[in-house]
Amino acid sequence: MRIVLIGTGNVATRLGMALQAKNADIVQVFGRSEKNASILASELGCAFTTKIKQIVTDADIYIMAVSDDVISTLAAGFPLMDQLIVHTAGSISMEVLASVSENYGVLYPLQTMSARKDLDFSHIPFCIEASSEANLEKLRMLAATISDQVFEIDSQKRKQLHLAAVYVCNFVNHLYAIGEELLKEQNLDFNLLKPLISETAEKVMQFSPNDVQTGPAIRGNKAVMESHLDMLEQHPEWKKIYGIMSDDIKSSQKKETFQNL
Amino acid sequence: MRIVLIGTGNVATRLGMALQAKNADIVQVFGRSEKNASILASELGCAFTTKIKQIVTDADIYIMAVSDDVISTLAAGFPLMDQLIVHTAGSISMEVLASVSENYGVLYPLQTMSARKDLDFSHIPFCIEASSEANLEKLRMLAATISDQVFEIDSQKRKQLHLAAVYVCNFVNHLYAIGEELLKEQNLDFNLLKPLISETAEKVMQFSPNDVQTGPAIRGNKAVMESHLDMLEQHPEWKKIYGIMSDDIKSSQKKETFQNL
Repeated sequence: MRIVLIGTGNVATRLGMALQAKNADIVQVFGRSEKNASILASELGCAFTTKIKQIVTDADIYIMAVSDDVISTLAAGFPLMDQLIVHTAGSISMEVLASVSENYGVLYPLQTMSARKDLDFSHIPFCIEASSEANLEKLRMLAATISDQVFEIDSQKRKQLHLAAVYVCNFVNHLYAIGEELLKEQNLDFNLLKPLISETAEKVMQFSPNDVQTGPAIRGNKAVMESHLDMLEQHPEWKKIYGIMSDDIKSSQKKETFQNL
Repeated sequence: MRIVLIGTGNVATRLGMALQAKNADIVQVFGRSEKNASILASELGCAFTTKIKQIVTDADIYIMAVSDDVISTLAAGFPLMDQLIVHTAGSISMEVLASVSENYGVLYPLQTMSARKDLDFSHIPFCIEASSEANLEKLRMLAATISDQVFEIDSQKRKQLHLAAVYVCNFVNHLYAIGEELLKEQNLDFNLLKPLISETAEKVMQFSPNDVQTGPAIRGNKAVMESHLDMLEQHPEWKKIYGIMSDDIKSSQKKETFQNL
């Protein structure tokens, strides 16, 4: 399967490298920046282009790992006939590619990817969707070369997955950032919080998060919550987050488990 | 060092078992519920009592692992002379024990503990504070038997640590719970989110959270954020959380790293 990789960002890079490590046949990288395209192409040992019209037309699959908002406009200019083209976005419908080729789909890796951090792809859930059973099978084979977690997920479910991912990844990471900032204010090392961060994540590998909630909100410990809110006077946004999260914990959690964090 | 353990909740249980595993000399458990006190005492192989007046008076250290709001009133009734008494709470000042004994302190394990989940204590940060250098040394020795991370932290810093812990543990866990609920609505398995949860936590072991933020908010992807907000019509509280977290990510993050989650 000859692959053209569209994009040079974190997903394109990580996905390209994972495919390359499994000897996938990546024939070309397309990127608008010559520098980025050439760097990724050299890492993948393939050709690159910065011009849409020079994208090779005889590959088997075109993987668009680009920003959500440019997928459809960029794809509209591709010189494709009926080759399989897919995007990697969580919240974009598969149908945005319907006018580009009669064979299209989605290959969405449900994972956070950063340029700086290596990533083991083998357990990343790949959510696939395609315009036909044959295309789906191609995507399944391709995804299976790099991951043992491949699922057929339609656009609506994928969008809900992406929404949930924003909560458990992006928002969670932002809470880590707030924790780090709070510690800095008292000259405390972020390392102090790391065992807690790890354990909190590990707990939900085994248990439902609602069953293992701990802390002042679930215990209904008003004195501690009030004193925390007082400490947040300088941070009105974090104070709002504290209030709304605590209220939501109180109202939505079953109070079967409570704990002295 | 002869230890009396006050309390039978998750912290008392986990801490007692960790001490017991290192052959600490726990002589008695106090708990208001006979059932809970007897269960924990039998696990620890020691005596128990439900009556304050029957707490043994010749132990070396009394560890109060009880709810924040009962520490001072409970301790006020203890038949102590000058023995060392400590509590394990993050947000309660050491001084609440000053009227109980002239030797007092705090032994705060910075970790989330649930009755159901085993826990390795060896890397849990123990924040200690005491009314004298000699008491501090006793606490340091005691904590060092179960953890290699023992730090002297004053009440103000400990309170800030606890506040940060609420963000990176309790609020994070609540975001996991929201993620699980969102998946349930589409009959999707929470397991799909677990590699993402793990990777998000692992990332900040190496990098500062602000440097590895990903997702629609940091990319300023308004179309995706608006479509997510539309999907949250049935969940006004989660919608508020989405809005305030996204705004705070946008305003506080350096936009050096962005990513296609």
